[in-house]
Amino acid sequence: MKALVYDGPGQRAWRDVTQPALLEPTDAIVRVDAVTICGTDLHILRGDVPSVEPGRILGHEAVGTVTEIGAAVGNVAPGDRVLVSCISACGRCRFCRAAAYGQCAGGGGWILGHRVDGTQAEYVRVPFADTSAYRLPERVSDEAAVLLADILPTAFEVGVRKAGVAPGDTVVVVGAGPMGLAAIVTAQLYSPSHIVAVDLAQSRLDAAKRFGADIVANPQQGVVAMVRELTDGLGADVAIEAVGVPETFELCTTLVRPGGHVANVSVHGKPATLHLEDLWIRNVTVTTGLVDTYSTPTLLRMLAAGRLDTSRFVTHRFGLADMTEAYDVFAEPARTGALKVVLTRA
Amino acid sequence: MKALVYDGPGQRAWRDVTQPALLEPTDAIVRVDAVTICGTDLHILRGDVPSVEPGRILGHEAVGTVTEIGAAVGNVAPGDRVLVSCISACGRCRFCRAAAYGQCAGGGGWILGHRVDGTQAEYVRVPFADTSAYRLPERVSDEAAVLLADILPTAFEVGVRKAGVAPGDTVVVVGAGPMGLAAIVTAQLYSPSHIVAVDLAQSRLDAAKRFGADIVANPQQGVVAMVRELTDGLGADVAIEAVGVPETFELCTTLVRPGGHVANVSVHGKPATLHLEDLWIRNVTVTTGLVDTYSTPTLLRMLAAGRLDTSRFVTHRFGLADMTEAYDVFAEPARTGALKVVLTRA
Amino acid sequence: MKALVYDGPGQRAWRDVTQPALLEPTDAIVRVDAVTICGTDLHILRGDVPSVEPGRILGHEAVGTVTEIGAAVGNVAPGDRVLVSCISACGRCRFCRAAAYGQCAGGGGWILGHRVDGTQAEYVRVPFADTSAYRLPERVSDEAAVLLADILPTAFEVGVRKAGVAPGDTVVVVGAGPMGLAAIVTAQLYSPSHIVAVDLAQSRLDAAKRFGADIVANPQQGVVAMVRELTDGLGADVAIEAVGVPETFELCTTLVRPGGHVANVSVHGKPATLHLEDLWIRNVTVTTGLVDTYSTPTLLRMLAAGRLDTSRFVTHRFGLADMTEAYDVFAEPARTGALKVVLTRA
Amino acid sequence: MKALVYDGPGQRAWRDVTQPALLEPTDAIVRVDAVTICGTDLHILRGDVPSVEPGRILGHEAVGTVTEIGAAVGNVAPGDRVLVSCISACGRCRFCRAAAYGQCAGGGGWILGHRVDGTQAEYVRVPFADTSAYRLPERVSDEAAVLLADILPTAFEVGVRKAGVAPGDTVVVVGAGPMGLAAIVTAQLYSPSHIVAVDLAQSRLDAAKRFGADIVANPQQGVVAMVRELTDGLGADVAIEAVGVPETFELCTTLVRPGGHVANVSVHGKPATLHLEDLWIRNVTVTTGLVDTYSTPTLLRMLAAGRLDTSRFVTHRFGLADMTEAYDVFAEPARTGALKVVLTRA
Repeated sequence: MKALVYDGPGQRAWRDVTQPALLEPTDAIVRVDAVTICGTDLHILRGDVPSVEPGRILGHEAVGTVTEIGAAVGNVAPGDRVLVSCISACGRCRFCRAAAYGQCAGGGGWILGHRVDGTQAEYVRVPFADTSAYRLPERVSDEAAVLLADILPTAFEVGVRKAGVAPGDTVVVVGAGPMGLAAIVTAQLYSPSHIVAVDLAQSRLDAAKRFGADIVANPQQGVVAMVRELTDGLGADVAIEAVGVPETFELCTTLVRPGGHVANVSVHGKPATLHLEDLWIRNVTVTTGLVDTYSTPTLLRMLAAGRLDTSRFVTHRFGLADMTEAYDVFAEPARTGALKVVLTRA
Repeated sequence: MKALVYDGPGQRAWRDVTQPALLEPTDAIVRVDAVTICGTDLHILRGDVPSVEPGRILGHEAVGTVTEIGAAVGNVAPGDRVLVSCISACGRCRFCRAAAYGQCAGGGGWILGHRVDGTQAEYVRVPFADTSAYRLPERVSDEAAVLLADILPTAFEVGVRKAGVAPGDTVVVVGAGPMGLAAIVTAQLYSPSHIVAVDLAQSRLDAAKRFGADIVANPQQGVVAMVRELTDGLGADVAIEAVGVPETFELCTTLVRPGGHVANVSVHGKPATLHLEDLWIRNVTVTTGLVDTYSTPTLLRMLAAGRLDTSRFVTHRFGLADMTEAYDVFAEPARTGALKVVLTRA
Repeated sequence: MKALVYDGPGQRAWRDVTQPALLEPTDAIVRVDAVTICGTDLHILRGDVPSVEPGRILGHEAVGTVTEIGAAVGNVAPGDRVLVSCISACGRCRFCRAAAYGQCAGGGGWILGHRVDGTQAEYVRVPFADTSAYRLPERVSDEAAVLLADILPTAFEVGVRKAGVAPGDTVVVVGAGPMGLAAIVTAQLYSPSHIVAVDLAQSRLDAAKRFGADIVANPQQGVVAMVRELTDGLGADVAIEAVGVPETFELCTTLVRPGGHVANVSVHGKPATLHLEDLWIRNVTVTTGLVDTYSTPTLLRMLAAGRLDTSRFVTHRFGLADMTEAYDVFAEPARTGALKVVLTRA
Repeated sequence: MKALVYDGPGQRAWRDVTQPALLEPTDAIVRVDAVTICGTDLHILRGDVPSVEPGRILGHEAVGTVTEIGAAVGNVAPGDRVLVSCISACGRCRFCRAAAYGQCAGGGGWILGHRVDGTQAEYVRVPFADTSAYRLPERVSDEAAVLLADILPTAFEVGVRKAGVAPGDTVVVVGAGPMGLAAIVTAQLYSPSHIVAVDLAQSRLDAAKRFGADIVANPQQGVVAMVRELTDGLGADVAIEAVGVPETFELCTTLVRPGGHVANVSVHGKPATLHLEDLWIRNVTVTTGLVDTYSTPTLLRMLAAGRLDTSRFVTHRFGLADMTEAYDVFAEPARTGALKVVLTRA
């Protein structure tokens, strides 16, 4: 079969590889029907994630059809259309028992396209299929569902839920790329009074408006003062960091009110400064996290009930064989306007 | 009357001042029967808290007897023995309505011995007396109660409760001074499996043992490895920072397990480094805070029921007139072995 | 001045009474600009609430203008337009300190139009004004605000919040009168997948649809089976009881799934049967409650931000002097179609 | 092998049966080293649980040694000493994903000694072994561990945790049999100020004192008044129902304060009356539940750390072959003074 293989920093190819086979009784083999590309995949290609070894098939998000299952698999069966989640869960370690699947200590966690071969391929082996793949209701399309493999639950769990967004809140989302937009979309599930989107690029601020932000701002134009004014001088209830550099994290800690919450949803490569000399007295909570995907079944239910619109994230569509072109489009959003790209089996 | 007056950096005197009078209908005047000194008072004397102006009477912790009340005071009456809390609460602002009294936006918060004259005096004006002074049950002694003015609720609320200490947890307390010891004492209310105390001074580690730590460690001797071993390689459920320097804060963030909690209870004068490049993926929660004293009535109830032993914090006792000597003893714990000093009216 | 006076069971009159005066330093006098009638007022008139004595002015919901304040009042000033809440809060008892104002043990709770004279009058004395009246933002109309005096916070706090309504939930609201509709409106703040309204009257089911229920059902037509089918056989996540008779309460306990929640928001006059022989094993939570109004500031913020539409509850408008006619209209909703009636000062 | 077989109401025998074999790849076979008898087993023998069919081997609590595992089992291996929990968890259904294992919809829940053969036997087949059996630390004895199969986690989760017992609380436990005593023991993990035990039998009240109740009372001697007096007239923060008849449940609802919590941990055969005419206004929460065993790993950790003493529940010890005698002793606690009986392999 064909797959997108990482051949070391800067090297990738859509090329022939061996088709995957069952290795464990808890595995399933899934034929990939729809797949997307994540910002993390670009990080890997730059060589930023050394735990990914050359030869690895990338990708940790897919919708597909089960073709084969191991002896211990009972939740999904051949022929089932399933969502393949970015998180694999052994289902029996201390972390999985507490629904902290992202921290799975039993061989799962984020492994697809990382420590084992991933979903940017014609077929993928899905470990721990019973707790890592989700049967899809009929009325949910492949394209709508594939956004639930990573970006939506990540923004929802690590951003919105950890931050405790509540009705009437003022929520600032710093960074209006796909993850920031997903935070804007899922924050709305809790009816905040104001969602403020902050970004340097006007095109992203325009997107933020379309996705539900009611105020948008360039960080170079007095965001802190603007948020203070909006909140009777207090600051935001919640700031969600969706960029991944020290400056934006530090901006978040200055934007929140006493008792407020900074939720980091982005990947960071460098340390940030935590101004404890100001913050020690302000009752501020800072959270980080990898998605656990405990919310995936709920989000799927909402999708099926028409309560969530994920398709609007998809700006570009390709066939699977156009994988390298899709990467090029996704890697240059400033030029292409790409949010999420979806590749489907012909 | 006499009071301990801050006369600018390095200058303090127990000298004659005007006796306080009622200023607002919500005030009470309290005759001070027992008072203590806080590490924060030492900071003020060093000039570290510029919001304290010369001429200010210091002190934000006392037990006393009400001598006079304003027209709007209904919870306490002349003759009542009361606890004067470090936090004054207007009781009607947005923060007070959410029991976040430490952040009171209606003229309260930490004001005693800071923005208004404090408790290290023969008499003190207590603003917002109905929501800032607590009638004491008979069987609770002055000395036991005065520890509930600041240190016990601070350690309990900002350390133990914010961190969510739970039965079976492994809790590390970094810093075994009075605040760290108070964290050790109040952490036990939730029955953790292990309380590890970390400090450089052997005398403090000995105190930690006496106050309930079951493991003590010098930070220069492999604390991280020791905690990992204790927790099957995971790290602590909770780390409480009770020192106030960047190094100890950063130690806390390396001690906690994925999903763990760092609760800062100390005053910081400098920023710390937050290693987001490691922490972004580890589901770590960091909290800061000033005490709100929402737990003061509960702690008083526990004291009255014999469920809390606070007197053991008191290592030295003085008369009120020995205020300067008491300061000297408290300021040099390495020499004097002082934890908390209590001064009482003759 | 004129007021609606309860003169014993079945007796009411809009007649001359003495204008109220300040009694306590924490009181305010408010000129009533808009007022409404509550189902509870009808109960009182029937003699169902014996704690209401003849001669009492009824009413516990109003918007008005402060004309006078006591010496200890600081949050509101003469000339301020304020919401007068159904709950008065002393702000300093154990319950108020925990934001459980409805259970105030310091002389507050539900007292207006109950134990002290109420709001269906030209002027009203508002006890504990600082913690019981709320200054209104300019852009919020009297009519929109008066709905926040009781019905909206009651449905939100006692129904939606106690039940823990969450995104993706299936919520059943039994009873589609004003309180049930308020539960439907505030449940939507948490984005449930389905809101099912249950009522015997088709006109109320039609109203439920307009207010946001996506499914409506007559209880005599297989509601339990319908909810099961909607939820893969499990039952509802949440059932909100908004009628007040044993049958509807018991229906709620059969509608919820294992682990589900029954929140009672209605007034009951008789005991109900709790089928513990079925429920003991099903992890069901049942809650009751009087509103605490902790959410009133939040709901006001949402109203000001255009995130809440309360005016649609108002079906009939009168002048204050038409009080008895307004009562007649409100008391016969089947004939008049009344939801809430609002009376305003000419 | 030998096992205790239910042969219809009133009929039981320790007799020869076929030794169990692996049926599913997720099964394990465990040799029983220690086993106990539960009050539920007595209910079954009386014919109260018709879902138990004649021919069923009873028992849902054991410690044993793994002798064989299915192909998909990875957490336990032959030779491992394990706790066999009363709850089997498929680990992959909606309920198991939310740690609500007691409600498992994938073939688990309470099945041992109920829908499949149980632990009162020389060998037992343990379904879903990876998520239903727990490897034991060396320093934990069989006898101490077997109490964690049911009674301790039930009292802790369904009683203490659902009720939200907190430091300083007044907790009333109605019923001082083994389950009530387990509630008393686990309530202490949260340092309440008072634990009041209520029972008709003086011997049980004496046991309650030994297990940590500080006040004991006969329900016929003014318990309500006594609890009121203890709590400044308010009532208990928490009442835990551990008897299982309507009268004791109703007593609990009269014992709790406004805002209080009634947690039912007992099995009920009849409905109770819920006095909504009093309770609707009192903010009371009532919870029921079957144990989920999410706390089992925590309790095991506490046992290993010496933070829990479960052996004191064991009043009588037998060899496995003395099963019928053990039943006789356990069934007549008034005569024998039995709390828990443990049977061990010779």
